[in-house]
Order: sequence, then C-alpha cells, then structure tokens
Amino acid sequence: MTELDRLLEGNQRYVSADTPRPKDAPPRRRLALLTCMDTRIDPLAVLGLGLGEAHVLRNAGGRVTGDVLRSLVVSVHVLGVRTIVVMQHTQCGLARTTDEELRRRTGADIDFYPIGDHIKALQDDIDRLVSSGPLHFVHATAGLLLDIETGAVRLVAKWPGGH
Amino acid sequence: MTELDRLLEGNQRYVSADTPRPKDAPPRRRLALLTCMDTRIDPLAVLGLGLGEAHVLRNAGGRVTGDVLRSLVVSVHVLGVRTIVVMQHTQCGLARTTDEELRRRTGADIDFYPIGDHIKALQDDIDRLVSSGPLHFVHATAGLLLDIETGAVRLVAKWPGGH
Repeated sequence: MTELDRLLEGNQRYVSADTPRPKDAPPRRRLALLTCMDTRIDPLAVLGLGLGEAHVLRNAGGRVTGDVLRSLVVSVHVLGVRTIVVMQHTQCGLARTTDEELRRRTGADIDFYPIGDHIKALQDDIDRLVSSGPLHFVHATAGLLLDIETGAVRLVAKWPGGH
Repeated sequence: MTELDRLLEGNQRYVSADTPRPKDAPPRRRLALLTCMDTRIDPLAVLGLGLGEAHVLRNAGGRVTGDVLRSLVVSVHVLGVRTIVVMQHTQCGLARTTDEELRRRTGADIDFYPIGDHIKALQDDIDRLVSSGPLHFVHATAGLLLDIETGAVRLVAKWPGGH
C-alpha cells in the first residue's frame, strides 16, 4: 500500500465517521492565525479555538511573507477577518540557522526567513502586518511565542499597544 | 474581555489539560500537506492523520507559491519529508473570481493565485512542485480536491504516474 493509498483510506474513514463540520466560510471569531508548519503544533487547540472560528495560515517559521500578506488580504477584505495572531515557537527549525547555512545545505538560493531572535522576528512580523496598506481594516494583531514543551504561549508583541 | 484575552485564556485551558504532544520535529510519515486556510477544513482529520505525522502548510487556496516552495525546501532537506500532498477544495473563496476583481475589491495590486478551474490549478501546482530543482528528493506528490460538503477527497493529479 502506497502512502497515497493510506491517505485515501484515511479519508474514507473520515467520511464514514460523518464528523460535524461548519458550513460557513467566514471565520466566526473574525480571526486569522498564522503559525509554523511544525508537526508538533495543533494550532486551534493551543488557543482554545474550534473549527469554523479562524483562518489558519502555516508556513516555515510562521513568518509574515508576501504570500501571507496575499492570503490575509483575502481574509480581511473577502471574509471579514479583523484580528490577526502570529504564533511562532521554540525549537523551530528556522531558529539558530542562517540564510547562508540553509543555502549551502539545500542548494536553493532564496530568502529562508530564518529566525535569529524570536522577540525581534515577532516584532518585525507584526510591524510588517501593521504597515501593510491593504490590511488597514484590521483592528488588532498580536505576536505570540509558543513553548513547544509546555504548550504555553507568551505575548511578545501587539498592536495597538496598551491593554 | 478582548479577543486577545480570550485566546490567552484558551491557552491556559490547553496547558492545564496537559494533552499529550509529539516531541520530535521530523514528521513521522515524512509527509507535507498543503491546503487552504479555509476555516471549515481540519487538514489532518480529513486524511486520517495524527499530530506528529506531517508538516501542514496553509495559505489562501492551498496554492504552490514561492513561499510554499521555501517552506517545502526546509521540509525536504532539513526534516526528511519525501511525499507532498496538495489539497484544494470546493467552495473556495479563490475560485470563481479573478485577479482583476480581487484587485478592485481589495486595492492590493498583487497576484492572488485565483482558481479558474480546480483540475487545472491542481495540475499546475503539482507540475510546479515537480519542476522545482531543490525538491528533487521528493518521491511522490498528489493533488486532491476536497468536497467541502461531504468531506470526501478526489485524486486529481499525481506524480509519478501509474499506480
């Protein structure tokens, strides 16, 4: 049995189980959550969210790239999202490495968005969201750091400031 | 209580529940799954996967963009992924629209990767993966279309061919 066969079989079990699914496309809590593709993260569970409440965006590192801005413009303008949360995490494959090392190792001559320092990366990413013209409808953004061992998140950056 | 307060409270419940979490970063099934940010999709559940088994990448549409290639280079070279699945879905916000309409509606002058036709979009995205030089370690890729109403997936494109 190939990996693809296993996945199709897994889907047959999912369909048979007839799990309740949300019907509406707009996220009920008007929320978009960006996080890392890391296999250990259960994005909705970590923040006590349910299916149907948020858009979930994931890439290497949970970084605000051009593609994330593309997706969020759709979230905000087409599907009514008003709060954006960026959740990066400890023990990330993009931390403690550099573009030079990753280029040497992979042969790909691209910007990998490595994370030299979690606090700075989250602050930079929140700044990038806030300064993006097409996202001016957004009411609030926050940058969280997830401790991959304990599951606890720490608030590292937010906009607007205050409490 | 602000939305951020609610999320932090949700995280406290998650930490208290002490849910078992995988410890290792490399996905156990050496799999990466790209899908849409859509709030109705539970990516692992749809394919019968568990936490710790796959990288999960999500953006608007589940399209193979430059940022997805960046992330997958890390998946493949750093974390041992060998199979890549692209899962797009019916009732997608990027289907039945155009770049022109989205630019007018959002004010963002970018490529939104709209989906004119699901079969073509999946085939194009699989082709883009297969022709990406740095992904030559990959053994297999598949393009699936998820029916958002029934939860069933249909195999639309795959590489290599055959069965």
